[in-house]
Amino acid sequence: MYDCIEAIKQKRLKKINGETFLVSEKHILKARNGDEYVGLKLKDRSGIIDAKIWNNLLHLKDKFEAGDFVKITGESNYYNDNWQVIIKDLERVEEEDVDKKAFLPSTQKDISKLQSELLGLIDSVKHPGLKKLLEEIFTDEEFFERFSHAPAAKTMHHAYVGGLIEHTVSVGKLASQVALAYKDIDRDLLVSCALLHDIGKVYELDPMTFNYTTEGRLIGHIVIGYTIVHDKIKALGLLNREKEMLLLHCILAHHGEYEYGSPKKPKTKEAVLMNMIDMLDSRMQPVVDAKVDESSGWSDLIKIIGKAIYAPKKSKELL
Amino acid sequence: MYDCIEAIKQKRLKKINGETFLVSEKHILKARNGDEYVGLKLKDRSGIIDAKIWNNLLHLKDKFEAGDFVKITGESNYYNDNWQVIIKDLERVEEEDVDKKAFLPSTQKDISKLQSELLGLIDSVKHPGLKKLLEEIFTDEEFFERFSHAPAAKTMHHAYVGGLIEHTVSVGKLASQVALAYKDIDRDLLVSCALLHDIGKVYELDPMTFNYTTEGRLIGHIVIGYTIVHDKIKALGLLNREKEMLLLHCILAHHGEYEYGSPKKPKTKEAVLMNMIDMLDSRMQPVVDAKVDESSGWSDLIKIIGKAIYAPKKSKELL
Amino acid sequence: MYDCIEAIKQKRLKKINGETFLVSEKHILKARNGDEYVGLKLKDRSGIIDAKIWNNLLHLKDKFEAGDFVKITGESNYYNDNWQVIIKDLERVEEEDVDKKAFLPSTQKDISKLQSELLGLIDSVKHPGLKKLLEEIFTDEEFFERFSHAPAAKTMHHAYVGGLIEHTVSVGKLASQVALAYKDIDRDLLVSCALLHDIGKVYELDPMTFNYTTEGRLIGHIVIGYTIVHDKIKALGLLNREKEMLLLHCILAHHGEYEYGSPKKPKTKEAVLMNMIDMLDSRMQPVVDAKVDESSGWSDLIKIIGKAIYAPKKSKELL
Amino acid sequence: MYDCIEAIKQKRLKKINGETFLVSEKHILKARNGDEYVGLKLKDRSGIIDAKIWNNLLHLKDKFEAGDFVKITGESNYYNDNWQVIIKDLERVEEEDVDKKAFLPSTQKDISKLQSELLGLIDSVKHPGLKKLLEEIFTDEEFFERFSHAPAAKTMHHAYVGGLIEHTVSVGKLASQVALAYKDIDRDLLVSCALLHDIGKVYELDPMTFNYTTEGRLIGHIVIGYTIVHDKIKALGLLNREKEMLLLHCILAHHGEYEYGSPKKPKTKEAVLMNMIDMLDSRMQPVVDAKVDESSGWSDLIKIIGKAIYAPKKSKELL
Amino acid sequence: MYDCIEAIKQKRLKKINGETFLVSEKHILKARNGDEYVGLKLKDRSGIIDAKIWNNLLHLKDKFEAGDFVKITGESNYYNDNWQVIIKDLERVEEEDVDKKAFLPSTQKDISKLQSELLGLIDSVKHPGLKKLLEEIFTDEEFFERFSHAPAAKTMHHAYVGGLIEHTVSVGKLASQVALAYKDIDRDLLVSCALLHDIGKVYELDPMTFNYTTEGRLIGHIVIGYTIVHDKIKALGLLNREKEMLLLHCILAHHGEYEYGSPKKPKTKEAVLMNMIDMLDSRMQPVVDAKVDESSGWSDLIKIIGKAIYAPKKSKELL
Amino acid sequence: MYDCIEAIKQKRLKKINGETFLVSEKHILKARNGDEYVGLKLKDRSGIIDAKIWNNLLHLKDKFEAGDFVKITGESNYYNDNWQVIIKDLERVEEEDVDKKAFLPSTQKDISKLQSELLGLIDSVKHPGLKKLLEEIFTDEEFFERFSHAPAAKTMHHAYVGGLIEHTVSVGKLASQVALAYKDIDRDLLVSCALLHDIGKVYELDPMTFNYTTEGRLIGHIVIGYTIVHDKIKALGLLNREKEMLLLHCILAHHGEYEYGSPKKPKTKEAVLMNMIDMLDSRMQPVVDAKVDESSGWSDLIKIIGKAIYAPKKSKELL
Repeated sequence: MYDCIEAIKQKRLKKINGETFLVSEKHILKARNGDEYVGLKLKDRSGIIDAKIWNNLLHLKDKFEAGDFVKITGESNYYNDNWQVIIKDLERVEEEDVDKKAFLPSTQKDISKLQSELLGLIDSVKHPGLKKLLEEIFTDEEFFERFSHAPAAKTMHHAYVGGLIEHTVSVGKLASQVALAYKDIDRDLLVSCALLHDIGKVYELDPMTFNYTTEGRLIGHIVIGYTIVHDKIKALGLLNREKEMLLLHCILAHHGEYEYGSPKKPKTKEAVLMNMIDMLDSRMQPVVDAKVDESSGWSDLIKIIGKAIYAPKKSKELL
Repeated sequence: MYDCIEAIKQKRLKKINGETFLVSEKHILKARNGDEYVGLKLKDRSGIIDAKIWNNLLHLKDKFEAGDFVKITGESNYYNDNWQVIIKDLERVEEEDVDKKAFLPSTQKDISKLQSELLGLIDSVKHPGLKKLLEEIFTDEEFFERFSHAPAAKTMHHAYVGGLIEHTVSVGKLASQVALAYKDIDRDLLVSCALLHDIGKVYELDPMTFNYTTEGRLIGHIVIGYTIVHDKIKALGLLNREKEMLLLHCILAHHGEYEYGSPKKPKTKEAVLMNMIDMLDSRMQPVVDAKVDESSGWSDLIKIIGKAIYAPKKSKELL
Repeated sequence: MYDCIEAIKQKRLKKINGETFLVSEKHILKARNGDEYVGLKLKDRSGIIDAKIWNNLLHLKDKFEAGDFVKITGESNYYNDNWQVIIKDLERVEEEDVDKKAFLPSTQKDISKLQSELLGLIDSVKHPGLKKLLEEIFTDEEFFERFSHAPAAKTMHHAYVGGLIEHTVSVGKLASQVALAYKDIDRDLLVSCALLHDIGKVYELDPMTFNYTTEGRLIGHIVIGYTIVHDKIKALGLLNREKEMLLLHCILAHHGEYEYGSPKKPKTKEAVLMNMIDMLDSRMQPVVDAKVDESSGWSDLIKIIGKAIYAPKKSKELL
Repeated sequence: MYDCIEAIKQKRLKKINGETFLVSEKHILKARNGDEYVGLKLKDRSGIIDAKIWNNLLHLKDKFEAGDFVKITGESNYYNDNWQVIIKDLERVEEEDVDKKAFLPSTQKDISKLQSELLGLIDSVKHPGLKKLLEEIFTDEEFFERFSHAPAAKTMHHAYVGGLIEHTVSVGKLASQVALAYKDIDRDLLVSCALLHDIGKVYELDPMTFNYTTEGRLIGHIVIGYTIVHDKIKALGLLNREKEMLLLHCILAHHGEYEYGSPKKPKTKEAVLMNMIDMLDSRMQPVVDAKVDESSGWSDLIKIIGKAIYAPKKSKELL
Repeated sequence: MYDCIEAIKQKRLKKINGETFLVSEKHILKARNGDEYVGLKLKDRSGIIDAKIWNNLLHLKDKFEAGDFVKITGESNYYNDNWQVIIKDLERVEEEDVDKKAFLPSTQKDISKLQSELLGLIDSVKHPGLKKLLEEIFTDEEFFERFSHAPAAKTMHHAYVGGLIEHTVSVGKLASQVALAYKDIDRDLLVSCALLHDIGKVYELDPMTFNYTTEGRLIGHIVIGYTIVHDKIKALGLLNREKEMLLLHCILAHHGEYEYGSPKKPKTKEAVLMNMIDMLDSRMQPVVDAKVDESSGWSDLIKIIGKAIYAPKKSKELL
Repeated sequence: MYDCIEAIKQKRLKKINGETFLVSEKHILKARNGDEYVGLKLKDRSGIIDAKIWNNLLHLKDKFEAGDFVKITGESNYYNDNWQVIIKDLERVEEEDVDKKAFLPSTQKDISKLQSELLGLIDSVKHPGLKKLLEEIFTDEEFFERFSHAPAAKTMHHAYVGGLIEHTVSVGKLASQVALAYKDIDRDLLVSCALLHDIGKVYELDPMTFNYTTEGRLIGHIVIGYTIVHDKIKALGLLNREKEMLLLHCILAHHGEYEYGSPKKPKTKEAVLMNMIDMLDSRMQPVVDAKVDESSGWSDLIKIIGKAIYAPKKSKELL
């Protein structure tokens, strides 16, 4: 498999014979002459391209939805200063049969290494109830798989496959370090919250399109995550009521301010620290990964900090 | 039983012989000479008064906590321009043996009538899952009793015994009326949410002191209420996932704006309506009940609207 | 008369022979070669289309203004991926000779029924001065005609012909109902304010283009409405000074907050209620009328609530 | 007449025999023993003092209201670390019989000179309609008298007798100067607005107590002033509709921002300038008049700028 | 020299033979076929146009940067509804050899007259230290030249060659006038600050492209200007520490509010006045210079006031 | 030396014979009888107490200022429910002769250990220019002494002797750790900024009273610190212009938002990190050190986070 969409745009790929794409949008439309057609957007790792189904409509239009992978037969053309694909036939492909990394932006890090690091952090928790809780949640294989490939956000930060686990591990390690810098921090509580604080994002964001799900829009990852943890604690009788409240409070308050969707502001040492390191890591990822224009030294606007970033040329860095 | 605290302040009651009071605060303090003593605040319906325990300290100081009722022997005196009670002896009184209305501000309405109205609103719900859910929650006798006597807020609105049920019934009736004014409103969903939206306040506020509980401060009534409804739906398998989300969203979003502690803004017809009628009733109660200075026509500042209210003299109202 | 603009775009109408359109914009422009021409936007109920006058310019360009209706001779063509009309000749048409409903979005409700309902609400007012005031204002035939066809806003809510009377009647009926829910509400004052609160919009918005008028931009509907009511009261000696102030305050404060253009925040029971029901109805109209995407269940962003709306599929609504 | 209240507090005045005071507050109260009494605050130029009427209550309590001047017989005493006056008898004094300057803080400037300056500014207006309008409003003798002694605000700026005319003349002169600094300013419009912009304050604030009147709280000086000007223009047919709107817009927009109570933001050259010079003068008066602590060089907090002011010692000013 | 870009767009200029343009942007790009090319934007006084270098790339691409002037050989064409220039050859032109007024929007005023006025204002300062400081800064010839041609902002106000000196002189004259309106203003301090408040803009903005420089983005004109004045005072030992702080405070606080980038709010009489007159002049320039649509009387949105401006037709101005 | 003020309040110290106190306020006042006297506040580590000088006024009143230490002869008494000291005689004591720790709240940490840690952090910087800069600034003995005993704020965080160095070292160590968590961080730049970011506080706050100095109020610690670093770089020619700007930008932007007094928002990786760890440490110190009420588990309101903190009882911490 190679980067088809880039190839089309560079005129190296004209006829499409069974290449696979991810459908990121699908709309039933009316042409100006009144005919119905399907307008799509196709994605792979190398870009995004418009596509249309004009023929064989009745047969093809219900075979797939946005978020599906499809094998396509068709032809590219250039219309109105835009490349597009005219689809003649298509087949839906099962997700399992696809190497998703070819279709979605992905973490630069090794996901299996991130998984080990996360399990190591769980292992480092000494409080038996919290450790058990973390194990119960993360050893659910289907959940862990989904968690490990989810993005951490639609656009703001870690917006790529594996972004959620990357952010979680990064925050977990910061928690582990910073807990030592201040007296009387409940380190196990802090690390546990660090690992759990964003698990609701597994259901808040569609793993293929990175769009918000209906559950994400109506309930939101803070309360979804709260519910997962609450249900697990209740089912297993793992923690006394006070410990439970302390942990759940950290999750509810991790955005720090009402206007960022936290229903509570941080009111424990650990909740204040959790909020700070979450904010630190959420801002640093897009800042560190920002591409900088070589001649000016400036990046484009970085949404989460509301500003562009300047980075000096390497050679200038010594005195 | 009569209004003791007013009587003390009017010098009609000097010796106190077994009168009952509510302890609203209790602090172990050190006098300037280093001696330990207990400082209290005692409440009944007629007011609030300072009290002190200087003697018999070891015997008395652990017999009661803030929120308890106590029968007191002692004497009033006037010190430093303030009335106080010097306690010689006291006994804790069980809550059941006390007529709480004598100690706390209370709704002007008849609580048993409000209970009937609430049950009537449940009865009017036709959707079987929602009706069952409401019945299961409100027919828990202990819960219903607590719900019926809870305040709806610490100070903002309906801050008195029975305030929560009064507000709930008022919002429920508005929901029932206003649902008809707009097309395609899911009336049963709206009324259900109206009845459930504030049930978390039963645990957010202390029923005696009206202070926030630790659970109220760390989790908050929005998420507490969400959890009660979520747990009940899950336990009984009452609603499909979509209906559940629609109901839970209405609860999560009923404050309307992030800055008022809602983790989600309203995103369904019913959630928008719910937010509007909750705001309407929360503002109207303190506005309608505000006392107006007779000569100026103006009330004191009403916190929830940030302004004082003007009300014309009755006689002037005709042309 | 049929929907010309849709017909042009569907290639069913090529030659235009005396069809009538509404001119929503008119600009005198310079072509790249330095020639002057007129660029227009033409509207009917079915859409909006660009148009140009290249020939016969001196003769045609002063025959009409934006907001006029014109009978056109010309031809449609497709240029630069856009449909347009090349005008050869045109005649201005008097407004009276046109069925405006064909040109502007319009309320789904029956305007004459809304008029009856409004007159019924006036009739329900018992206070003689307020009733007289309402009658004097609304029985001015020219005003009532204009009021009955005005939009209630440019885009936010009820942005269509008849939107103002629809909103006014809706708010009037809510006022009438909700007045009963709270004690000591001056029902006649509240209903009067409900009927008068937005009358300034008759002069704030152009009835054809829905754009703000210069008077609307410099004075605004709140103060325009205030002035109409003030002048009428003064001219007829209808109310004592206190009643007048109470009514005028309700009008000035109906937006509730300074940042929405109210020069005063609500400071009477009736002004608080007025603000609440105006907000309720302004938000509910666009929420209730929002079109929802069938497959996702989500609408587009609704400006007045700052969010999209989710509505479940009908079939899913039972358990 | 001398400064009685200061004299009482310095123990130089014990018996009070017919001295005159301004009543700034009056409350009917209940003593702790249930007896009714009247609590007052008395003011003169030298300060403010508590007073009480215990005896002869029925005879005295309806003889005066807050805002009245009263001649008092009684005695001062020192109670609970506070000076107070026990009133034995009192008589209401007509306002005309009193030299108000003895009772209220007053402008340092000569009011009759300010009146001449204001008339001079009217004289400098060339536009006949505007000049006539200004003359009609300011030559109403009763109005001009009231205007010349009104404060410009309760506390923010120019909060003293004559403050309104002082501020008006200052803004008028700035208008006259600054109009020359920019091209195409309608100088007559700007100066007219400068003179009229705050005339509503004559009715918004009580001239004796500087408290807001009910009209001030419900309608506000911006709309009151707008109404005075509107009524006068209408009565006399003075201006064409456009000129009228331009002038009225300047008045409505002079606070510049919605959150300061302007129902419109400035949208003409003159309205922008008007807003700027009004803000400049409102801030400069309290800044310039602030008393600075000699040793630190700092004033107390100045409300309108939200900060204290630093002023260097004179001797340090040269290099 | 004539207006080439307008000529190209009006088809009067096809072949370009050594005309000079300002390069306002320069990007190295990849074509869809993978070839590298240079995309430029060329400016002169009459407009802006796209340009491309396809041929001779290696030879041409390093001969110039954004901000340079270039003499061009090439051809105009019309592509994708847009005019562009295909460059065949180019030469960099030294800035000294160019009449910049042909390439950049420029003040309507006479720069040498503005320079005289500025020197006259310096002359009017009597305090020897301040006068010396101003002379030292403004008599640096290179600095004065740069200052005299700098814009005062990228887009907000005075965004043209000479804008900075025009704004500085305007604010200086206002300072001089308004200082007399209030008592105890240190007129020399105020005028000095007026002349110095924006000198940091000389380095904050690129004099050719009006874009922010890296120094402007990282340090900002407020602190750059502060540093210039601080360094000069330190180098020459001109002022005592108190006078220095008073002057530097005026510079730091001249934006008035933290949210406009001032690290301090105004805390001296002169700093409050400085902030007011800077705001007045910054708003009035774009308001006064706004072009108004002849038929409607309304301008486009003016960014700095957030509103469009209305100006009546001249002929209507009398009565 | 022992804790005098506590001793007075516990009636253990009546006669004062040459005890030393810190004068935190001094005011020349007028008694009600017109006599002049001096009102003081005296502080030591155990508390604060009122004091008065009635006798020997002319002799004593100019012997000391606020911020001085004084040896006192006098007597304590209890007046109006308040303890006070009546001073008969006093002598000013030189600061060097006093153990300041007895008079001011102080860090719990060992200041000489913090100094070593700070020097260790300087030592860890490899970039020669930055290392030299840090050494030059911190090896100035007088500066280092003052820095080591300064508070970090008046009230918000680290508001005690040694608070500034404690905060600086804490932030320096966090910088050192966190720099490793993200790629391409200029660790030396970040650590340098961490050590320098608050040095302006040495001059912003009075080391005895913790009040803001005039320089602190007019210039502020951000720009004062910027100036120290700028002057040192300039004097020694230590860094190239780019490195200088990057360091100075980190200092200017360390508060992160305009509304917290930063004239620039963070625009480099290191500036974003600096802002995050400064915020983290500023919030954690008061949170960690907050005293919690034993029975409720709640602290008082903590200003910097706007909330009280809950901490569970130790015994409850295990499951």
